[in-house]
Amino acid sequence: MTAPTIDVIAIGNAIVDVMAPCDDTQIEALGMTRGGMTLIDTDQAHALYEAMGPAREISGGSAANTLAGLAALGANCAFIGQVADDQLGEVFAHDIRAAGIAFKAPARVGEPPTARCLIFVTPDGQRTMNTYLGASQFLPPEALDEAQIAAAKVLYLEGYLWDPEEPRAAMRRAISAAREAGREVAFTLSDAFVIARHGDDFRALIDAGAIDILFANHVELAALTGCEDFHDGIAALKHKVPTLVVTRSEQGAVAVRGGAAAEVPAEPVARVVDTTGAGDLFAAGFLFGHVNCRSLDACLKLGAICAAENISHYGARPEANLRELVA
Amino acid sequence: MTAPTIDVIAIGNAIVDVMAPCDDTQIEALGMTRGGMTLIDTDQAHALYEAMGPAREISGGSAANTLAGLAALGANCAFIGQVADDQLGEVFAHDIRAAGIAFKAPARVGEPPTARCLIFVTPDGQRTMNTYLGASQFLPPEALDEAQIAAAKVLYLEGYLWDPEEPRAAMRRAISAAREAGREVAFTLSDAFVIARHGDDFRALIDAGAIDILFANHVELAALTGCEDFHDGIAALKHKVPTLVVTRSEQGAVAVRGGAAAEVPAEPVARVVDTTGAGDLFAAGFLFGHVNCRSLDACLKLGAICAAENISHYGARPEANLRELVA
Repeated sequence: MTAPTIDVIAIGNAIVDVMAPCDDTQIEALGMTRGGMTLIDTDQAHALYEAMGPAREISGGSAANTLAGLAALGANCAFIGQVADDQLGEVFAHDIRAAGIAFKAPARVGEPPTARCLIFVTPDGQRTMNTYLGASQFLPPEALDEAQIAAAKVLYLEGYLWDPEEPRAAMRRAISAAREAGREVAFTLSDAFVIARHGDDFRALIDAGAIDILFANHVELAALTGCEDFHDGIAALKHKVPTLVVTRSEQGAVAVRGGAAAEVPAEPVARVVDTTGAGDLFAAGFLFGHVNCRSLDACLKLGAICAAENISHYGARPEANLRELVA
Repeated sequence: MTAPTIDVIAIGNAIVDVMAPCDDTQIEALGMTRGGMTLIDTDQAHALYEAMGPAREISGGSAANTLAGLAALGANCAFIGQVADDQLGEVFAHDIRAAGIAFKAPARVGEPPTARCLIFVTPDGQRTMNTYLGASQFLPPEALDEAQIAAAKVLYLEGYLWDPEEPRAAMRRAISAAREAGREVAFTLSDAFVIARHGDDFRALIDAGAIDILFANHVELAALTGCEDFHDGIAALKHKVPTLVVTRSEQGAVAVRGGAAAEVPAEPVARVVDTTGAGDLFAAGFLFGHVNCRSLDACLKLGAICAAENISHYGARPEANLRELVA
């Protein structure tokens, strides 16, 4: 087994976020679930975009955001995801490479276009996401470079991408490649709707010992374990994954590794502008600590700092100098 | 002559801004002129984008920004400009319509793509712009709806767009249509490089009495009049245009109408984040006052408030509720 040359390699949706402020009345009028993530088709995407105010476009995608945070902290990262051969695909590819992240999956020619997420942000900073997956759901298993996966300390997988068939197959193959190379696998559950559809898969992966680090928020924890109570949920899961990390929005986060548990409060933020990507950046901070062999407490603290930076501005990619922030 | 149904109709570049923070070292290394605007071709656009950090995309275009400010203040506006039939064209069209601005020019099929402006923003908020004009320079004179122009109190023209041939012809035709309908023509000089290339045209238009309201900054004033001294420049021009408005960055702005002169200091700003569009939003506030028959002092004050809002955040389109801000 050769020494790893990459800190974290991730497989995720290659998405450009289209973000606009809105008020709660609009969320209701459009029949959206505040704070939720809904998959939308082409017609819905057109109708919702039509209803949206003037927007801005910022690259997103859950695992890609996490890598952007990791790279900003100084980690060496690689991303695997599928863009289309179009302008938004160029934007995504530019932004991830400009962040210093290796990204070599070729753009997919023809329809559908690059994925986008229409994000409505209310004045309290809550984000309501509507995702048009487009090209992203056609990531073929052949897009994987197994040698690259074997070269990374951690393979990080985005639960959102478990839904479409081709990427799911790619992720299963990636898990095997990482495992064969003796690498760790980290998985984020992404959203309760993913668990509703694929909870059995996730529980089977966990039971098979395929996941070393599991990220969830409190809602996803409840969905996966069936335990309404937070502590019951932790208790039900903590012996099944080597490292369990659960975020609880403004209540901070909890991590359990082996017998040890640690907890961190949320970092104070002057004003919550946009919570898009808070969990993604928490994972970035935590994983940065993890690949650098920091304590569980330190990993949580790094996560909390990165999440706080993230929610203090629009967009899910870091703006401030994270390296200086965590120094 | 029927009563106008539109406050301001504008002809301008239909551009999406691609904005990224950078430091002064990068500005120098790339050989750019800090604070300037440079036209770039396809190859330069690719090379510069490659060198740019992770960016965000926000609709821009000088006159379009001005309309976005006017619409946010409550004015009834229409925009004429050329996008291509591509994703950035959709973004531009969405954003301007979502701002409540009428925009009906059809997208142009085929190459070149929609215009974009690669904007490097230094920590002091200064913006250095590199514009790839793309489809924008192919606005055909036939795209004008002369009845629509005749229905607007003010026709607002962007000097940047005087450079390419087709839009220049369109703008000349628009001036005639506005004049025949007894409407006012406002013109912004945009940049000293435009004056270097087309100063004779502008001076001829002014001498022919075709321009009622002329917007310039102090650099453009000097370029147009040949007077290095600010007050000499004002003196040279003030009898030639009914209303002259000259902005001076942090030194505020001056306006002269007939015999009367007025001056406004710059509005205080907590932190200058990005000066992109400051002049555009100054024009928005001024024109809003103008079409609502406010005093010269009030017009300048409105301009200063809108410019201050604009430079306090990334992007050249208003974010705060301008109507409340000026109330």
